[in-house]
Amino acid sequence: MNNIPYKIYLDEAELPKQWYNLRADMKNKPAPLLNPATLQPMTAQELSGVFCEELVKQELDETTPYIDIPQEIQDYYKTFRPSPLMRAYNLEKALDTPAKIYYKFEGNNTSGSHKLNSAIAQAYYAKQQGLKGVTTETGAGQWGTALSMACAYLGLDCKVYMVKVSYEQKPFRREVMRTYGASVVPSPSMDTAVGRKILQEHPGTGGSLGCAISEAVEVATSIPGYRYVLGSVLNQVLLHQSVIGLEAKTALDKYGIKADIVIGCAGGGSNLGGLIAPFVGEKLRGEADYRILAVEPASCPSFTRGKFAYDFCDTGMICPLAKMYTLGSGFIPAPNHAGGLRFHGMSTTLSQLYHDGLMEATAVEQTAVFAAAEQFARIEGILPAPESSHAIKATIDEALRCKETGEEKTILFGLTGTGYFDMYAYEAFHDGQMTDYIPTDEDLAPGFATLPKV
Amino acid sequence: MNNIPYKIYLDEAELPKQWYNLRADMKNKPAPLLNPATLQPMTAQELSGVFCEELVKQELDETTPYIDIPQEIQDYYKTFRPSPLMRAYNLEKALDTPAKIYYKFEGNNTSGSHKLNSAIAQAYYAKQQGLKGVTTETGAGQWGTALSMACAYLGLDCKVYMVKVSYEQKPFRREVMRTYGASVVPSPSMDTAVGRKILQEHPGTGGSLGCAISEAVEVATSIPGYRYVLGSVLNQVLLHQSVIGLEAKTALDKYGIKADIVIGCAGGGSNLGGLIAPFVGEKLRGEADYRILAVEPASCPSFTRGKFAYDFCDTGMICPLAKMYTLGSGFIPAPNHAGGLRFHGMSTTLSQLYHDGLMEATAVEQTAVFAAAEQFARIEGILPAPESSHAIKATIDEALRCKETGEEKTILFGLTGTGYFDMYAYEAFHDGQMTDYIPTDEDLAPGFATLPKV
Repeated sequence: MNNIPYKIYLDEAELPKQWYNLRADMKNKPAPLLNPATLQPMTAQELSGVFCEELVKQELDETTPYIDIPQEIQDYYKTFRPSPLMRAYNLEKALDTPAKIYYKFEGNNTSGSHKLNSAIAQAYYAKQQGLKGVTTETGAGQWGTALSMACAYLGLDCKVYMVKVSYEQKPFRREVMRTYGASVVPSPSMDTAVGRKILQEHPGTGGSLGCAISEAVEVATSIPGYRYVLGSVLNQVLLHQSVIGLEAKTALDKYGIKADIVIGCAGGGSNLGGLIAPFVGEKLRGEADYRILAVEPASCPSFTRGKFAYDFCDTGMICPLAKMYTLGSGFIPAPNHAGGLRFHGMSTTLSQLYHDGLMEATAVEQTAVFAAAEQFARIEGILPAPESSHAIKATIDEALRCKETGEEKTILFGLTGTGYFDMYAYEAFHDGQMTDYIPTDEDLAPGFATLPKV
Repeated sequence: MNNIPYKIYLDEAELPKQWYNLRADMKNKPAPLLNPATLQPMTAQELSGVFCEELVKQELDETTPYIDIPQEIQDYYKTFRPSPLMRAYNLEKALDTPAKIYYKFEGNNTSGSHKLNSAIAQAYYAKQQGLKGVTTETGAGQWGTALSMACAYLGLDCKVYMVKVSYEQKPFRREVMRTYGASVVPSPSMDTAVGRKILQEHPGTGGSLGCAISEAVEVATSIPGYRYVLGSVLNQVLLHQSVIGLEAKTALDKYGIKADIVIGCAGGGSNLGGLIAPFVGEKLRGEADYRILAVEPASCPSFTRGKFAYDFCDTGMICPLAKMYTLGSGFIPAPNHAGGLRFHGMSTTLSQLYHDGLMEATAVEQTAVFAAAEQFARIEGILPAPESSHAIKATIDEALRCKETGEEKTILFGLTGTGYFDMYAYEAFHDGQMTDYIPTDEDLAPGFATLPKV
């Protein structure tokens, strides 16, 4: 018998007291955000119009490797962390693989995902600054739920612009946010100049994350006492999400386990960046080697088919320019794609790491992802989110490769959340009505045409 | 600072290896099930037509205090247990109460509730007996989901009769069960004689648990290789659910904490019976004293307004008679009532304990329950199931009483599950469209008229 338990829980005393800032160990730093008007790096002062001051500091800090987690955030983390590091004994057995599979499960909180790790941090700093509230966008709804929870806890007002197609397909998500006191607006809306413009140009559009971002930013910068917060892409978000990787690493170290491969799904990069942070840190410092694998949807393939270029993060082109792997801010993902991971760009930090060959990426198709999700649910019990299931699919493929080669690799993957609010997508899958979509080069061209000339 | 963590997790080695059979310590045993035809106690042989043999043994065993948990069930438990014992620091602070509040949270698994504890046990024994599959009913859907998960894991066929109103209001629950490979039929259905009869007499009925039970039993007893399994009420279910109380007790003992009051919601009694088992055991053996409080909906008040009498467990009157607090098998709960806890009867074990003055009961109204649920969600983070929120409401009332009197009572309550699939009910609450219903004595009369003359 193996003495590694099914679930490794750290004690409260073992929880991280500092976040790890991966950029401090990177030789090639991620390129700075640029002011879209001047094409000069955004200053702290410029960013402070949009973001809280402390978060601006974190966004720009490329040198401090460890940043203290304020006690109040640590206390809130204790209400839902540590998340368990699970050993997938049943999956290993079902696949008959010599590989050892671990997953860090972030879904055991009401937001249903890892998003709460950064939501509470961003809400905390907004509160510290004496703000009245925050605005944000949400796609699949995890981020909006997480932010609503954090704001309810701290007594902050919360306005969420929710991608219209998700708003309509996920009324339950909306009700969860309302339970926590948030106001939820389908985007594009008539509330904002950018929303009205998009509705005029594309009547009946289901919206996009990029468009919802534009609306949330417009509102945050036009109402006094409000700032904008974002659930992915930004350096500050990856910083907060490092608790995922730090906990996972501590749990593995405790049992003397060395991962060979670390796998995560990639939309904007929040989960992946957090999960891999301490592993990539060791890699950058030459202390250990790991294979790092990003898994993205074939229908929105920023890493595998995007360009490494400066681009807008939003459709309205009012946000700073970020240098990243991108399909262009004008890229609209296929409506048939379920769940998140629909963002046209990617974290600048992860983009730089990928560009420098420190990580790999692969793209997987939707029906294969849902087949892996259902297989996983039946074997491991947990009903995974569509996003997380991208990592499951890649993990199963890797474990089956180990079966062929006989290699006893240790795989760690990020199970970012649960699929309880994605049952329409599961229903489509069960009814054989789910389709795959792999854009042709021609399909991608309109998005690339929106790339700014920088 | 307090050295009790927000969440107490036991180690795998500390998990229960035996279930606790409360009946062994009861002086007044629960009355036996009667054969409805002969009015004689049901024999093991008679019960074996409906239930697996090992489960029949457990159902009838009134003398063995501890029963070994088979290793395979223990292993499955490890995939989702231990459940955390949470210290409600934030709720205590928000209520400004000297009371210390703990809750055993059973919602961190895909079934969303404690139901999985018994589902895996019942499915395991069915598999051991070489059966092909099992049938059951489900109301709110937690039990059906739990059984689907257990059957998927063990490779058993699973047929679920789902109360029609829930089937229609909760399409997502149905899809979760389909994900795990179960077949889900809205009840009453045309599949069964009893279903056809009820549809003829009450066309357009939304169904009831009692009716769904009748259908599931009819199918189980008419298809070879199938047996019926039940998620509540039965002694065997309370036995399996004792893991809740045993874990909670071990966790409290580990930190030297003595509960004064143990509070749980009561529908058929599965959660309450499991949670209170070791505490009532100590009480019965004269080792310690606890106040035990059952909380039921005012719209379905079996304990507080029912009769202690022999009654059918199902509407079709094909099940054995059980002596319990009951509103009559003909009682149809008001359609406005959200969530579970709609069963007309109550566990025979709990009924006997209540009759003997070993526990108390109280009834609470629906809108007050949802107000408590929302308050709890905002403060503690977890979005509770409507069922569990009955216990939350009673706990908050008790904590506020402590505030008045200054008593530093230690309260333990059972948070049986999450409300992710109950967002229509939350929506009705948010929109001010939720109503209360307290039946008059006249409303209860038709149910009592269906009580058999025993």
